[in-house]
Amino acid sequence: MVDAAIRPAVSDAADTPEGGIDVARVHELLMGTWADTRRQAREMIKDPAFWRDDSLRMDEHRERVLTQLHLLVENGAVHRAFPKRFGGEENNGANIAGFEELVVADPSLQIKSGVQWGLFGSAILQLGTAEHHDKWLPGVMDLSLPGAFAMTEIGHGSDVASVGTTATYDPETEQFVIHTPFRGATKEYLGNAALHGVAATVFAQLITNGVNHGVHCFYVPLRGDDGQDLPGIRREDDGLKGGLNGIDNGRLSFDHVRIPRTNLLNRYGDVAADGTYSSEIDSPGRRFFTMLGTLVQGRVSLDGAASWASALGLHIAITYGSQRRQFDGADGSETVLLDYGKHQRRLLPRLATTYAHIFAHDEFLQKFDGVFSARIDTPQDREDLETLAAALKPLSTWHALDTLQEAREACGGAGFMFENRLVGLRADLDIYATFEGDNNVLLQLVGKRLLTDFARQFKGKDAAALAKYAVGQTAGKVFHGAGLRALGQTVADFGQVARSVELGLREEQQHEMLTERVQQMVADIAGRLRAAGKDRARAEKLFNENQAQLIEAARAHGELLLWEAFTDAVNAIEDARTRTVLTWLRDLFGLSLIEKHLAWHLINGRLSTQRAAAVSRYIDRLCARLRPHALELVQAFGYEPEHVRAPIASGAEQQRQDEARAYYAALEASGEAPVSEKSLRKAQKRS
Amino acid sequence: MVDAAIRPAVSDAADTPEGGIDVARVHELLMGTWADTRRQAREMIKDPAFWRDDSLRMDEHRERVLTQLHLLVENGAVHRAFPKRFGGEENNGANIAGFEELVVADPSLQIKSGVQWGLFGSAILQLGTAEHHDKWLPGVMDLSLPGAFAMTEIGHGSDVASVGTTATYDPETEQFVIHTPFRGATKEYLGNAALHGVAATVFAQLITNGVNHGVHCFYVPLRGDDGQDLPGIRREDDGLKGGLNGIDNGRLSFDHVRIPRTNLLNRYGDVAADGTYSSEIDSPGRRFFTMLGTLVQGRVSLDGAASWASALGLHIAITYGSQRRQFDGADGSETVLLDYGKHQRRLLPRLATTYAHIFAHDEFLQKFDGVFSARIDTPQDREDLETLAAALKPLSTWHALDTLQEAREACGGAGFMFENRLVGLRADLDIYATFEGDNNVLLQLVGKRLLTDFARQFKGKDAAALAKYAVGQTAGKVFHGAGLRALGQTVADFGQVARSVELGLREEQQHEMLTERVQQMVADIAGRLRAAGKDRARAEKLFNENQAQLIEAARAHGELLLWEAFTDAVNAIEDARTRTVLTWLRDLFGLSLIEKHLAWHLINGRLSTQRAAAVSRYIDRLCARLRPHALELVQAFGYEPEHVRAPIASGAEQQRQDEARAYYAALEASGEAPVSEKSLRKAQKRS
Repeated sequence: MVDAAIRPAVSDAADTPEGGIDVARVHELLMGTWADTRRQAREMIKDPAFWRDDSLRMDEHRERVLTQLHLLVENGAVHRAFPKRFGGEENNGANIAGFEELVVADPSLQIKSGVQWGLFGSAILQLGTAEHHDKWLPGVMDLSLPGAFAMTEIGHGSDVASVGTTATYDPETEQFVIHTPFRGATKEYLGNAALHGVAATVFAQLITNGVNHGVHCFYVPLRGDDGQDLPGIRREDDGLKGGLNGIDNGRLSFDHVRIPRTNLLNRYGDVAADGTYSSEIDSPGRRFFTMLGTLVQGRVSLDGAASWASALGLHIAITYGSQRRQFDGADGSETVLLDYGKHQRRLLPRLATTYAHIFAHDEFLQKFDGVFSARIDTPQDREDLETLAAALKPLSTWHALDTLQEAREACGGAGFMFENRLVGLRADLDIYATFEGDNNVLLQLVGKRLLTDFARQFKGKDAAALAKYAVGQTAGKVFHGAGLRALGQTVADFGQVARSVELGLREEQQHEMLTERVQQMVADIAGRLRAAGKDRARAEKLFNENQAQLIEAARAHGELLLWEAFTDAVNAIEDARTRTVLTWLRDLFGLSLIEKHLAWHLINGRLSTQRAAAVSRYIDRLCARLRPHALELVQAFGYEPEHVRAPIASGAEQQRQDEARAYYAALEASGEAPVSEKSLRKAQKRS
Repeated sequence: MVDAAIRPAVSDAADTPEGGIDVARVHELLMGTWADTRRQAREMIKDPAFWRDDSLRMDEHRERVLTQLHLLVENGAVHRAFPKRFGGEENNGANIAGFEELVVADPSLQIKSGVQWGLFGSAILQLGTAEHHDKWLPGVMDLSLPGAFAMTEIGHGSDVASVGTTATYDPETEQFVIHTPFRGATKEYLGNAALHGVAATVFAQLITNGVNHGVHCFYVPLRGDDGQDLPGIRREDDGLKGGLNGIDNGRLSFDHVRIPRTNLLNRYGDVAADGTYSSEIDSPGRRFFTMLGTLVQGRVSLDGAASWASALGLHIAITYGSQRRQFDGADGSETVLLDYGKHQRRLLPRLATTYAHIFAHDEFLQKFDGVFSARIDTPQDREDLETLAAALKPLSTWHALDTLQEAREACGGAGFMFENRLVGLRADLDIYATFEGDNNVLLQLVGKRLLTDFARQFKGKDAAALAKYAVGQTAGKVFHGAGLRALGQTVADFGQVARSVELGLREEQQHEMLTERVQQMVADIAGRLRAAGKDRARAEKLFNENQAQLIEAARAHGELLLWEAFTDAVNAIEDARTRTVLTWLRDLFGLSLIEKHLAWHLINGRLSTQRAAAVSRYIDRLCARLRPHALELVQAFGYEPEHVRAPIASGAEQQRQDEARAYYAALEASGEAPVSEKSLRKAQKRS
């Protein structure tokens, strides 16, 4: 029942036929374009002053995080995106990269600094003009001017265009009157609003001369020099949240609060002293989306932070799973958890997905940096960046929650102990799935973009041709043999053994299947939506019926982007052994996607039943092949003890296992070990 | 952009062709066999003294919950399972039913009372004999004797048989020496161990006369009358956990602690004064499982508590989703969230699954009550009960986590506020997935039982026949057309329209598909495992390769049980309208299961591609049909405001929506509403 023998760890990457991988090279790849900044940030947060202190209650945690924000200022860690004339670096990519790394110190620290410099500060920087910059950016940067970003209201989150707060221009006094006309228009969930904010960037309907010009952003002081809230300002504290309790979220409402006309952040729309409105962007819709688009960096950084949090979770669970043993194996020793097929299945596909997210994030960050540095900044680029953000942020934030939960369960009761990080990270990251854009709403945006791009293909062609195309697509589904024949699988797979079926699931086929799934799903939905013609009510009904599938198509698009980024990264590896292992990991990712959507591939004739049946077996084999490399693959994330800080991943488990095994070995050697009743009975039976 | 009109809520169940359902009747069905006890418990916990207080820090929360336990004693709420001679009722079913209801007051309260009366108390009751009962049960019952249940160790959780703690009999002094021989043998995660426990029921290897008779349970005093820990007792505090912080979990270790021989809870095994061991159960293995089997009620109660927690989560999210609006619809009003196809897809299948779990739980509880009241108590019944517990507890606890998370995301930022209950419930229930049996390990047990039952069918038949059977099964997979023809779908479905395809997805077909899936999966795995013959190492390797699939087969078995329980409940409804709606809900559950495993049904020829393609569309239609009944269906859970306590589900959102709409209506009527720039530009274009 208990294990009396000691054997060395079975799984050593160096003992595999392919040998160990080049961990340093993989680490470089994962760290990406702004590796130096990431390293700098990781070095900085080795200081315990930046660590989450789980013993604090909400109010103490809030104060600690505020102090940590000042530490960030002292360390020059948060000024990379700001103009050089204020001491910044105008380096947008590096700014986000460094910011993301804070998540492993304390997600509250990450998000509160995001509120200050990424939202409040960015609104002034991106939506304001020189005068505003001069006036407020120095205070924003050195944290003498902490502020809130007041966009969301109780009644309007995703639909920002419909916020109820009004900013009505009064030409008599040359002031805007900021007002909350009903309870639902109260600004809600704002970091820095409950306590620390002395000003806010407030989004409100700009009304002048009886015309509503839509949502604009205004700088509104909240607190006077005496530290008291100004007249008409009302704050409420959101109190305890599911996580991120180091941030003082709260509500703000305004009772006819007057601010100078020049407090309108007027880069995209202005009001003259006499109340005349002007904007360089004619279309109110395009103007609105341009303004919101300047704030995309929140989504960028959540994508990176969530991906790296997944990496940390897997570092912990895979380290523990490589040391922890439970239940006797055939050889009499207790089996290491990660040697179980199911345990591999739980953790290794998520490891592969995490790699995909980290690689995709770096490409995303490059795109962001290009647009924000105005190197590549056409309307098309901005639109692509928005779509990329809307596709990747949902997938990575959901992936983080899923991974942290599986990691926690894979560590059993130990995973539930706060000190082991997993439950705390999960709780803090929970909100990432709905803030900075609700994940489902974002994916719907991607879906709509895919539909637009699809329709563009048919521009100039008549409606009949399009209808015919749509019918053709649907036919492909009904006569499901057609797709199969096109791929030539039916004939090729007959009588094939597992090994050769795998050949039909390699890089090229994975890419083909993932790509065609997006195309086909979009074409199918477009075909169904066309039936509405110009009937708006019918169109709404049809859209609603297809909403869940459109979101699925968007997800498929995001998954394709991830797969492509992973493949590009693999192709950048020179060392053959490393490349082999990373190719397995990419295959594990690709095939896990195909397995997840296997029914779709079958129904749409993209996979024969034989090949479909082979997918799961192939995944099992890939898991077994990757298992000896699991530790190397998490080592490549580069986390050091000061980042991990989880006792179960510190080597303590290995020590306990060794101690237990040594105890039984010594007992056995002493000749005083009790005999088990079981073995006595067996012996009796034999005699 | 903003909505100026007011219209009544669109979705009124009474306006549907089928009319409203009989909510009271459905409520009765859900409350099940021990409805009266449940009602009594719900009435009791309306008292705010039982509610979770989110403002407390860990130490305060622990003290509050201890006080609440005394309140339970005062209310006579926790003695239902105990012997009548001590003032109990010997009513096992009612005891669990009442206990489960505590989860909506505070899961910490539920679990800490579970530790005291369900684990510590039950160990004495079930594993001890009359003398032990007389001595300790009164103190257990009135809480003058709070105790810990010391089974799990740092090094052994799922594998209880291998715990390291020893209880060595010393005939000289007629004492057992309880000892922790190495760090990994420390008892871990024990409620009441950090602070409140004055004694513990300790599971240890019983060693006497040089023989280890396996794990037995001992009563070990921890603290003397002076309130100080006794010599050799060492406690450590587990500190902060991911949830359930109202419980003082901790570690216990023993340094040669001596207890009287009679402190062995000796119902299933005893040691005479001279050290002679005796047991009425010969097989050490069966003895061990019999002892553990008496403690199955933990799993029973978690199944019920998790199912009702899911119900509460859906009550909150569906109430909010029926009031909250976002984005303009085609009619100019903002759309109610639950009118979105995707929102229905997110919440309604989970509502259906929750119904299935609650119905299945009542059957489970009846079985438990039958066995524990010795009305039906054969070894076969005990084994069935164990398997039922191992199948249902994993599914319901995972379902609760999934549902609470989806509910939280469906409520957006409001869902993340602690006051709205969802994040707190989720955090507290997280550990339900791994305590009282790790979910994956439990499902593996079920899988092994399924394999045993499968093998039993072939008992007496020769190996060749079995091998042939296995090949036949596999062939069914390769020649995938075969299964289809057997079901007659290929011909029948050709050219069918959606409506008639649905006819092929009714009750009978759902049952057939769910049943055959379990059978086929088990047969397939059995066939693959047979290849090992008597080679133990090969058998381990093969088992490991099939582990993930065996767990899937066990899940499929559990899903079938849920579906059958749901169907039985539907058949108990007399009212035709109610029955129609509940049948839709059952269909939604059944088809969601089939959709989840669609690839399996396709690969194994159980569904034609046409019919498979129809499944998702049918689910969409069912969601749309059920949408007007969603509120009725959550009302049937019977939760009152004192149970819900979530501001977003209090009607506050409806009030805010009404207020906003009234504001815009009044503004419109006043003639002073600003014109939108958008509409001005449209008008200019037209002129």
